[in-house]
Amino acid sequence: MEETSNGMEKIVSLCKRRGFVYQGSEIYGGLAGTWDYGPLGIELKNNIKQLWWRMFVQGRDDMYGLDAAIIMNPKAWEASGHVSGFADPLADGKMFNTMFKTSVGAGEEATTAYLRPETAGGIFVNFKNVVDSFHPKLPFGIGQIGKAFRNEIAPRDFIFRVRELEQMEIEYFVQPAEWKEKFEEWRKGVHAFNEAVGIPQSAVHELEVPDGERAHYSKRTIDFEFDFPFGRKELYGLAYRTDFDLSAHQKASGQDLSFRPEGEEPVVPHVIEPSFGVDRTFLAVLASAYTEDEQNGETRVFLKFKPSVAPVKAAVFPLLKNKPELVAKAREIYTNLKKDIPQIMWDDNGNVGKRYRRQDEIGTPYCITVDFDTLGETPQMLDTVTVRDRDDGEQERVAVADLAAYLLAKIRV
Amino acid sequence: MEETSNGMEKIVSLCKRRGFVYQGSEIYGGLAGTWDYGPLGIELKNNIKQLWWRMFVQGRDDMYGLDAAIIMNPKAWEASGHVSGFADPLADGKMFNTMFKTSVGAGEEATTAYLRPETAGGIFVNFKNVVDSFHPKLPFGIGQIGKAFRNEIAPRDFIFRVRELEQMEIEYFVQPAEWKEKFEEWRKGVHAFNEAVGIPQSAVHELEVPDGERAHYSKRTIDFEFDFPFGRKELYGLAYRTDFDLSAHQKASGQDLSFRPEGEEPVVPHVIEPSFGVDRTFLAVLASAYTEDEQNGETRVFLKFKPSVAPVKAAVFPLLKNKPELVAKAREIYTNLKKDIPQIMWDDNGNVGKRYRRQDEIGTPYCITVDFDTLGETPQMLDTVTVRDRDDGEQERVAVADLAAYLLAKIRV
Repeated sequence: MEETSNGMEKIVSLCKRRGFVYQGSEIYGGLAGTWDYGPLGIELKNNIKQLWWRMFVQGRDDMYGLDAAIIMNPKAWEASGHVSGFADPLADGKMFNTMFKTSVGAGEEATTAYLRPETAGGIFVNFKNVVDSFHPKLPFGIGQIGKAFRNEIAPRDFIFRVRELEQMEIEYFVQPAEWKEKFEEWRKGVHAFNEAVGIPQSAVHELEVPDGERAHYSKRTIDFEFDFPFGRKELYGLAYRTDFDLSAHQKASGQDLSFRPEGEEPVVPHVIEPSFGVDRTFLAVLASAYTEDEQNGETRVFLKFKPSVAPVKAAVFPLLKNKPELVAKAREIYTNLKKDIPQIMWDDNGNVGKRYRRQDEIGTPYCITVDFDTLGETPQMLDTVTVRDRDDGEQERVAVADLAAYLLAKIRV
Repeated sequence: MEETSNGMEKIVSLCKRRGFVYQGSEIYGGLAGTWDYGPLGIELKNNIKQLWWRMFVQGRDDMYGLDAAIIMNPKAWEASGHVSGFADPLADGKMFNTMFKTSVGAGEEATTAYLRPETAGGIFVNFKNVVDSFHPKLPFGIGQIGKAFRNEIAPRDFIFRVRELEQMEIEYFVQPAEWKEKFEEWRKGVHAFNEAVGIPQSAVHELEVPDGERAHYSKRTIDFEFDFPFGRKELYGLAYRTDFDLSAHQKASGQDLSFRPEGEEPVVPHVIEPSFGVDRTFLAVLASAYTEDEQNGETRVFLKFKPSVAPVKAAVFPLLKNKPELVAKAREIYTNLKKDIPQIMWDDNGNVGKRYRRQDEIGTPYCITVDFDTLGETPQMLDTVTVRDRDDGEQERVAVADLAAYLLAKIRV
């Protein structure tokens, strides 16, 4: 595994030990720049992606979802300039010609093709399809989540700079005159997303990319940088790309990619592009959540995830493992809760204190203990359970009948 | 676009027109064997994937989720036999050496690597990681959803035989002695999944693969075939793979991949593999749902999706578009419903009859109309709406206050 520093070791180690992220192909010595998400990592990642999809695609009437293929007709990458290679200041000013090549088909019919280096290309190529199927009005956008691949020379910093990554990208199509207003709206949208996943505003910095350092087609770009443990680095990007992409694809494909507002002249829409990295968001969420404090005189490590992204929303314990009546009642509560909240865990190993520590370390916001009072030992506490809060350790007594609603209200964004 | 027959044209055409599936890179003349999922397709696909994940991963205490990288260390594919190529009867008896090749890294350090032809490899390589993080007992399984790539010589039949596909795979690790019992359990699991997504049992046929036609390591294999419009073809597979995979990776990696049950001798677990194709499930769900009937003397095309997989659960209409009080009330209802049920659509184009036809064609199970009675024209109907059922056209009057609960109960599996 590559070397890390500045507190990254602790996060990388926790990720492996507790099943968030493993080195790719680890038993074979790894493959640089690839990482595998374990059982808890995939839940956290899916929560982040679903939250983004709900906020920016399903939650808006002006947005359309898409899932385009990773391998595209190579003409698309010739049109966009990726094949010839161009200096892209968004990629740290390096020449951006790091596409993985492959060959599609066999024999004489084989064609060189590329693994997409960004998901945006698939959106532009489907602009006409979405317009033809849905007849949207301007402004509207298309959002996509998917894998992208870059043959980085020096992958590093855990899941920050990798060869196989996942992106959440939006191309938002506007009338040329309204770009400033819409750019501003998406700038706020980026901050709203950070808020929703638990990345604190204080750790996010807007870098206005100056003239001459932007991609040649961009009239305005903001990099949203995050204070990662290894330094302040790009987390998201927001770019006004003019009509560069649609015009390039229109020219190369010979298709009419203009838009015809009712009763107005046709126009090639301009584009605002908010671009989010899934893996970088995952890492920023993890780094933001990683906390050490003291509880009962001992150092405690816990992940202070927002309940909305936590991979496990609640854990259910029988107070004692060897009391069948406690175990049966706890299983019943666990099984019922799981119908409404699938990300629920069962834990009956060791004592309750140890279970709290284990759940704290994976960021479970609520621990539910079924004890003798639940069974009626104290009659007025019959059918109630203890709910313990991860952050302050406070305990509350909640009626079993109210438990699902109680938790659902807390785990909503 | 390739030629299709036997009713497939209607499905392919509906998919393009209404935004389910587009040809990959269509404006550039396409790229054979690649398809892009449009705004409705991605919702349907996500519903299928989430249902699988809930049923087989989150819903079971013996299952762990995973999301391994697509590009793996090539040694993994040497160990599995994919690099040298072997006759795999599961792939229609063809030589199964159709991996896409690429090159990772630059200059002298560049290595040949492959795009995974199946997701299973990523699971075996992470077997030890999951055991070390979670200490499961046998039997337990690891489930994964993700892309896989095969350089098919002749991609065909829409999204059935493609070069870029998505799989949902489980490797279920068992004691050698219990394989028959567990195989039987997963056989039932496959049918339960079909039931949940709305693929009728009558269209699914178990093909017991005879000795000599199975992969050399498999002691039992069932192909689940579906009556696709182009013929009876493989939908899912269920295979008992013995300890072939773990033993091969153990030998090649030099890592100990045996499992040590408490107080017992170490054992290399045997494996039951239920394997599902996302795109094939999508197509089987579509083909099962595609229906033509007569309503009001006219032929009607509708997609009879189970509400649980329908890309749009309900559409909300104001009876008339030009009555601001109707529109305002309908918007309020729409906005409130969307909080609980994100897959809700707004429609105010044309008359209600036309809207019903449009929603039928994309399989929306419920259409909600806000009319003058909603506003109190008939006092006892104040704050009620008409809910129209897609399948029988029946209409019911439902109180606005009960609407979310009414729909949620119907769209649950």
